[in-house]
Amino acid sequence: MITFAVVGHRAVTRGDFSLNDLPGGAGRIDILCRCLTTSLFLSHDMRRDVECLLVLLGEPDPPKTIRFSGKDVRYLSPDERSAASLMKKALLLPVTGDYSFSMPGVAIRRGGLVRLLEEQTFAVLDESGEDIRTITDLPQAFLLSDHENMSPEEKNLVMGLRHISVGPRSLHAEHAITLVLNELDRRRS
Amino acid sequence: MITFAVVGHRAVTRGDFSLNDLPGGAGRIDILCRCLTTSLFLSHDMRRDVECLLVLLGEPDPPKTIRFSGKDVRYLSPDERSAASLMKKALLLPVTGDYSFSMPGVAIRRGGLVRLLEEQTFAVLDESGEDIRTITDLPQAFLLSDHENMSPEEKNLVMGLRHISVGPRSLHAEHAITLVLNELDRRRS
Repeated sequence: MITFAVVGHRAVTRGDFSLNDLPGGAGRIDILCRCLTTSLFLSHDMRRDVECLLVLLGEPDPPKTIRFSGKDVRYLSPDERSAASLMKKALLLPVTGDYSFSMPGVAIRRGGLVRLLEEQTFAVLDESGEDIRTITDLPQAFLLSDHENMSPEEKNLVMGLRHISVGPRSLHAEHAITLVLNELDRRRS
Repeated sequence: MITFAVVGHRAVTRGDFSLNDLPGGAGRIDILCRCLTTSLFLSHDMRRDVECLLVLLGEPDPPKTIRFSGKDVRYLSPDERSAASLMKKALLLPVTGDYSFSMPGVAIRRGGLVRLLEEQTFAVLDESGEDIRTITDLPQAFLLSDHENMSPEEKNLVMGLRHISVGPRSLHAEHAITLVLNELDRRRS
């Protein structure tokens, strides 16, 4: 299982946002949508061995984590609006500490980065890290930030983790995900 | 200058499509939007040395080509809706054989793949091609198809061109663009 976790620093934590204003009113949820679809889609197929964890830290009720499992997810299309509509449905559920399913393959719970880091060892995707092409033992779980840098508190949380770079330029999170998946695909083929 | 050209086989050629239904009513224009933003965006910056050519072959008035130049484009945000809104504005212009600008960095003209291939030598991104990592003299112009395979006529047109693969899996067009740009970034750094 390959895992991507993406921190959405302003991504709203209520389900009534407008699908017509994902960058503004929904707190850059467009970024999380692209990370989700990039994680899960192949051409005319899905990556059944990938899960994508979206950490939402925006108002009014943070933190929440939405988990999409490539193995089980249905009704997801590659466009941002479709992905956002599945996030809306999940955000309409009451949250507890355990994952509640809003539909097959899509679940939401209370909690954010602290809890994810307790459960799994992540590598941080960061342009100052080791070059992914030179790493022999590639990790299976990767942590990314949205358009905002990690906060000082978040940086403290991930300080001891492995930092991996996908290339010489600073890229959008979804582009980094594509590059990680390509490296994993090449090593398996 | 690096060029990406993407063929949108059903992408509508009128400017009155709904921004709320890019995959359906607009003929998978969502794919062209993602190819465009992937071509041009870095994190908090744009790729000024890239242009993206979107070939629209859908009804009612094909073929048309919209050109986005990273050097000059303004008012483009990374979300699909923003990109589609700039395409709508271009599609509202009357077209001639010469590019007409709808705004800085965005222009449209009559014509499609035949004309592009007369003007520039493209490499075709295709999973059965040579592996991009093993190619010493990388081309600067790349041709992709949307979710549909190239038609027999299109295949004939590109038969003599170099075919390049970005990896072992069949990917969405925008993911292939990310992988080409990463390879170019690495060779320049």
